Amino acid sequence: MSRKIRMGMVGGGIGAFIGGVHRMAAAIDGQIELVCGAFSSNPEKSKASGKEFFLPEDRVYGSYAEMMEKEKQLPEGERMDFVSIVTPNHVHYGPAKMALENGFHVVCDKPLCFNMEEALELEKLVKETGLIFALTHNYTGYPMVKQAKAMIKNGDIGKVRKVVVEYPQGWLSTKLEDSEQKQASWRTDPKRSGIAGAMGDIGTHAENLAEYITGLEITEMCADLTAFVEGRALDDDGNVLLRFDNGAKGILHASQISAGEENDLNIRVYGEKGGLQWHQMEPNTLVVKWLDQPKQVLRTGVGDLYPSAQSHTRIPAGHPEGYLEAFASIYRNFAHCVRARITGEAVDPIYEDFPTVSDGVRGMRFIDRVVYAGSSEEKWVKF
Amino acid sequence: MSRKIRMGMVGGGIGAFIGGVHRMAAAIDGQIELVCGAFSSNPEKSKASGKEFFLPEDRVYGSYAEMMEKEKQLPEGERMDFVSIVTPNHVHYGPAKMALENGFHVVCDKPLCFNMEEALELEKLVKETGLIFALTHNYTGYPMVKQAKAMIKNGDIGKVRKVVVEYPQGWLSTKLEDSEQKQASWRTDPKRSGIAGAMGDIGTHAENLAEYITGLEITEMCADLTAFVEGRALDDDGNVLLRFDNGAKGILHASQISAGEENDLNIRVYGEKGGLQWHQMEPNTLVVKWLDQPKQVLRTGVGDLYPSAQSHTRIPAGHPEGYLEAFASIYRNFAHCVRARITGEAVDPIYEDFPTVSDGVRGMRFIDRVVYAGSSEEKWVKF
Amino acid sequence: MSRKIRMGMVGGGIGAFIGGVHRMAAAIDGQIELVCGAFSSNPEKSKASGKEFFLPEDRVYGSYAEMMEKEKQLPEGERMDFVSIVTPNHVHYGPAKMALENGFHVVCDKPLCFNMEEALELEKLVKETGLIFALTHNYTGYPMVKQAKAMIKNGDIGKVRKVVVEYPQGWLSTKLEDSEQKQASWRTDPKRSGIAGAMGDIGTHAENLAEYITGLEITEMCADLTAFVEGRALDDDGNVLLRFDNGAKGILHASQISAGEENDLNIRVYGEKGGLQWHQMEPNTLVVKWLDQPKQVLRTGVGDLYPSAQSHTRIPAGHPEGYLEAFASIYRNFAHCVRARITGEAVDPIYEDFPTVSDGVRGMRFIDRVVYAGSSEEKWVKF
Amino acid sequence: MSRKIRMGMVGGGIGAFIGGVHRMAAAIDGQIELVCGAFSSNPEKSKASGKEFFLPEDRVYGSYAEMMEKEKQLPEGERMDFVSIVTPNHVHYGPAKMALENGFHVVCDKPLCFNMEEALELEKLVKETGLIFALTHNYTGYPMVKQAKAMIKNGDIGKVRKVVVEYPQGWLSTKLEDSEQKQASWRTDPKRSGIAGAMGDIGTHAENLAEYITGLEITEMCADLTAFVEGRALDDDGNVLLRFDNGAKGILHASQISAGEENDLNIRVYGEKGGLQWHQMEPNTLVVKWLDQPKQVLRTGVGDLYPSAQSHTRIPAGHPEGYLEAFASIYRNFAHCVRARITGEAVDPIYEDFPTVSDGVRGMRFIDRVVYAGSSEEKWVKF
Repeated sequence: MSRKIRMGMVGGGIGAFIGGVHRMAAAIDGQIELVCGAFSSNPEKSKASGKEFFLPEDRVYGSYAEMMEKEKQLPEGERMDFVSIVTPNHVHYGPAKMALENGFHVVCDKPLCFNMEEALELEKLVKETGLIFALTHNYTGYPMVKQAKAMIKNGDIGKVRKVVVEYPQGWLSTKLEDSEQKQASWRTDPKRSGIAGAMGDIGTHAENLAEYITGLEITEMCADLTAFVEGRALDDDGNVLLRFDNGAKGILHASQISAGEENDLNIRVYGEKGGLQWHQMEPNTLVVKWLDQPKQVLRTGVGDLYPSAQSHTRIPAGHPEGYLEAFASIYRNFAHCVRARITGEAVDPIYEDFPTVSDGVRGMRFIDRVVYAGSSEEKWVKF
Repeated sequence: MSRKIRMGMVGGGIGAFIGGVHRMAAAIDGQIELVCGAFSSNPEKSKASGKEFFLPEDRVYGSYAEMMEKEKQLPEGERMDFVSIVTPNHVHYGPAKMALENGFHVVCDKPLCFNMEEALELEKLVKETGLIFALTHNYTGYPMVKQAKAMIKNGDIGKVRKVVVEYPQGWLSTKLEDSEQKQASWRTDPKRSGIAGAMGDIGTHAENLAEYITGLEITEMCADLTAFVEGRALDDDGNVLLRFDNGAKGILHASQISAGEENDLNIRVYGEKGGLQWHQMEPNTLVVKWLDQPKQVLRTGVGDLYPSAQSHTRIPAGHPEGYLEAFASIYRNFAHCVRARITGEAVDPIYEDFPTVSDGVRGMRFIDRVVYAGSSEEKWVKF
Repeated sequence: MSRKIRMGMVGGGIGAFIGGVHRMAAAIDGQIELVCGAFSSNPEKSKASGKEFFLPEDRVYGSYAEMMEKEKQLPEGERMDFVSIVTPNHVHYGPAKMALENGFHVVCDKPLCFNMEEALELEKLVKETGLIFALTHNYTGYPMVKQAKAMIKNGDIGKVRKVVVEYPQGWLSTKLEDSEQKQASWRTDPKRSGIAGAMGDIGTHAENLAEYITGLEITEMCADLTAFVEGRALDDDGNVLLRFDNGAKGILHASQISAGEENDLNIRVYGEKGGLQWHQMEPNTLVVKWLDQPKQVLRTGVGDLYPSAQSHTRIPAGHPEGYLEAFASIYRNFAHCVRARITGEAVDPIYEDFPTVSDGVRGMRFIDRVVYAGSSEEKWVKF
Repeated sequence: MSRKIRMGMVGGGIGAFIGGVHRMAAAIDGQIELVCGAFSSNPEKSKASGKEFFLPEDRVYGSYAEMMEKEKQLPEGERMDFVSIVTPNHVHYGPAKMALENGFHVVCDKPLCFNMEEALELEKLVKETGLIFALTHNYTGYPMVKQAKAMIKNGDIGKVRKVVVEYPQGWLSTKLEDSEQKQASWRTDPKRSGIAGAMGDIGTHAENLAEYITGLEITEMCADLTAFVEGRALDDDGNVLLRFDNGAKGILHASQISAGEENDLNIRVYGEKGGLQWHQMEPNTLVVKWLDQPKQVLRTGVGDLYPSAQSHTRIPAGHPEGYLEAFASIYRNFAHCVRARITGEAVDPIYEDFPTVSDGVRGMRFIDRVVYAGSSEEKWVKF
């Protein structure tokens, strides 16, 4: 099958942040081709965007419904193979459902959708259709996150005792949503974002990262959520105590009012024999701390890393790979799985490594439960 | 008054960790002279220690009681001016009380004592006697901690919203107390350490640092304490949510099972306009983060720091000062206050900056309340 | 003109390091499409590579000569617009010359070619044909390198006095070329690499970076080059003193036997008022040091950076961009210039920012002069 | 012998930078007692200084000559055991010579003296008298410098190939000597400092550190020295190529016009099997880089360091020791050697580790040769 996998996009018109990220990520590895899109609910804007992306006019649609319908009628190999959904949270469910119902695989931005009902419905549809569904918890795409996961799975640091996962940002320290800032506007709006602010936008990344790396599940949470900026409807900061299913304890905090912080998702995991530390802003480094031994600085491309880390690295040591490359790995893995599905060939298990609809359901449950915990008098709330 | 201030020591015989620290710290600035001591409850060991410290035999005592009594009979200028107490927690109250009752000023290691009753009693005694009492929460002696405090007081980062204070260590990841390790032995023993393990030993430092830097008081806590190492009687890890009196929220965690961590006390404070970050293991640096501006790296000795930071720095920029120097600043400040008391002169207010018995009472209350919170079903416990 | 710019590639078959980098870099920004290639001097290997890249069979050629000839006969808009040359050094001149003679724009990997004669010939050809020629000194594509250049140009740090540029690698610490390692093999072979080893491979990057950032020209050099690994024909380490045209002094060292170093190109520039420091392995950070002021940490996406830095940044602060993105910026800028040439429209000057054939000539002269200086008894050799 | 070793000081009156450092360093370990001094050539100032240091009036002298003479007449055990010389360079030789001639051991600040003649004379005198002479190249006192030396000696990183030693400061970026700044004044004055500026003041530290750590000797140098600040008589910047006696190559640069730099003495050593990196401003850390293995971060107090590193560490891991502690180690070792000399007992070889008069001679030769090399047309100048 000598062609690229074909992507149709929902949302992500000119000027959108995450849409551009998805397009760059999908392009990097040369496996995926953008063939069509419904880039905006405004058909004019959709058209203008399609032109910018060098698409033929007849593959730029005025709505995602139109796109699904028209593409479906094209022959296999010409029509899109999958849909990439990069709209705000409240417009994930509609196109995802329609894509699945019409036989298209799906890549969907996080969080999965707007509420638990939608989440469970999507999970059901994915199971029923057997289609491939990737959720872009992109931070799990970094090689050193893969390395950390593999080390813990292999018992390198012993049984996990403590997890500290943090996601401080500062960009919502002022009431940015009162300006024209598009990102701030929808992310602080309960009608488009859902019941959570920072906890939904970035807290879910932290939750996903902690569970992905440790292989553990959060079982209980105790939360203190705050909207520090006056007049803001949703939380812009949250501090959470965690308990995991193996008895480990943890802390998760996510914030968009940590003034001066950029995007410092980071995690520390302590086991009986050692500890791991990873910072998203220096993603090619994994610090490994040992009991009474010098700590080691593991780096992408250096020495004997686990296969999952190596297979998600493109270039030699010292040539930094960043956010787009980690994001791209999710698209690359997804594309290889889609290709295998089309050709009927087996897929290298290394590619069966991307967040799925079930991770999305778990993220939605995190949102549901942490918001409840934040307002509850109970100390511990079941996940 | 052309002489050094004279110190008598209780505890701190050969091989003791913290006793040596106190002696070095007291010596650095040339203001204090060790003149006598009761270095051990074992008179032979006390004698051997005194010899090691070049003390005349008749100033080395078999017990602190003997020391107080005999020293008291010496003329002013010959007898010790103050007592330095460097014993385990359960032997703070006795010598402190006796010193105060006999007219000696006191420097006492932290935490203040064994329980709240002793703490309140000591506070009362200090008030009654008017004697000078310093508690060695030594981390507040660092110049960049002074700078952070001054910046917040001056409103440089605006109203404080969030505080994250951490104190991870890893040295008790295994059951070290079963070996001959003296430090591990008494710190994990409820009879000598009190009701708290890690929370008392290092959690109090974290609490003290957070309150000292921010000028805020903790009003409520929600805690999850754990003894991870099997068979250990006291907590070796604790995660705590904090609420402060100005509405700020916070996280405090302290741990002695964070495998591979050395002694990484650190704090981040976020205000409406910016954030501060300080790590004890790189103590000459204070990172200042600004909204939409490049962050700044403040360094001891560089540029226009606040007077309190400058006056606690001994050498030019780039010549690192460390733990002993910060510790020494507490002794230096204390010594200047004692000297002023003796001469009747006014003391430069810059020297009236060291933790007092009241900080000690607050630390004991922290221990009392955080242990209660850890075992309580209540979500929020008043400080 | 609603189509992507069309790229034909010379070299870069499956398994080649730098060919893959060029393809990923060209793809990221969605401006360029790979349409044909002569990926190997072995036609079978070229064909297999073309298939891997999803090219139609008739656009995969057995030699670059065939490619030029056949592509030339295709109509504009179908044929390739430019050639990307990613072969070893001794196969740069041939395809570059032929491309220029046949009206194709060129992107060429560095160093420009094999020797000074070829270099001057290519420069002449570019001038005569007026075609666009980009040399992939990719490290100048980083936003913080742009920022550093703009700051110096604007006088922010005052007149430049001292430059320290370093490029330590360790991968040739052993005689790797005796194994099957393809990269090591040709880079240490005078027949394919030219008269210089490390100095040609990475020293030229250092030279280019220093001159690009400072806007100064090296006028004199004093060099000590060594081949440390026994039996190696070309230098694997070089230490060079520099003098610049404004009176500034400098140090350049490049090494492939600095055991344990990855790819740590870095530069420090000191002016009368401040200093700059940039490390390729943390490329989103530029440290600015001031006289008697706190140093600042400039970061991509934070605050008021110069337009050239902003326009080479794709994603918000804290989302790291890496090596491929910097490389991609050269392709993106080149593509916009080629597009403007085709459409006859003016190009935004922000895109007229990539290394040209003249930078390539300068790099070849550096190689020529530094090798001479290394073996010369003269202290100072004119550049 | 139950008493401290007794120190008399030459220079270092109130307000002097390095005098205070020596006093604090001598005090830390409780082995040394300041008993007398000639703190200034101005007797009034000397007297005032002595009072500040709590010395009896009759032990504060108006000149070093007077001090030597009077002290010599006091009985052993009361008189000073050694002289500490902390004056500017041109006043090292006089008191050192007189001390040696009168039977006093000597600690002398670096560089050893004013010129080669004085240096050789002092070396001869030390040999003849058999007295103990320590030169305060204090940076060799850091535990991680000891560790680096031990690792190289033990062959851990294989045969040394390359050394990069740097000492950038920025404090003389402007003509500070025109202000009242005392340090700047004498250090830039050929009459008091000698023939070198930055090269003498800090270049000698770099030279000493490189030779101490590697155990190699510099055999040839090629230098480019500059006085960047207009009207300055001595070099404020120097770049030097080095060749070592085992065939290793190196770079040494020292600067006092590297704007914004504090005191960043640092060194990297590359051997056949790995590399070491140490920065004075983070002195408790030694980074060890390995071929194709994760680098390790060695820290004071962590794991199995070499005995020389362990024996120069006072407090547990994570409690930073700094500049004063490293300085103190030289005094401590010196004091133990003096004590052994007095008691006639053997000294633990661990204490026979401090820079001697021969290191001082080597430093003076470095100054002599590097200044010659800087002005010479010859490329390589013998050390």
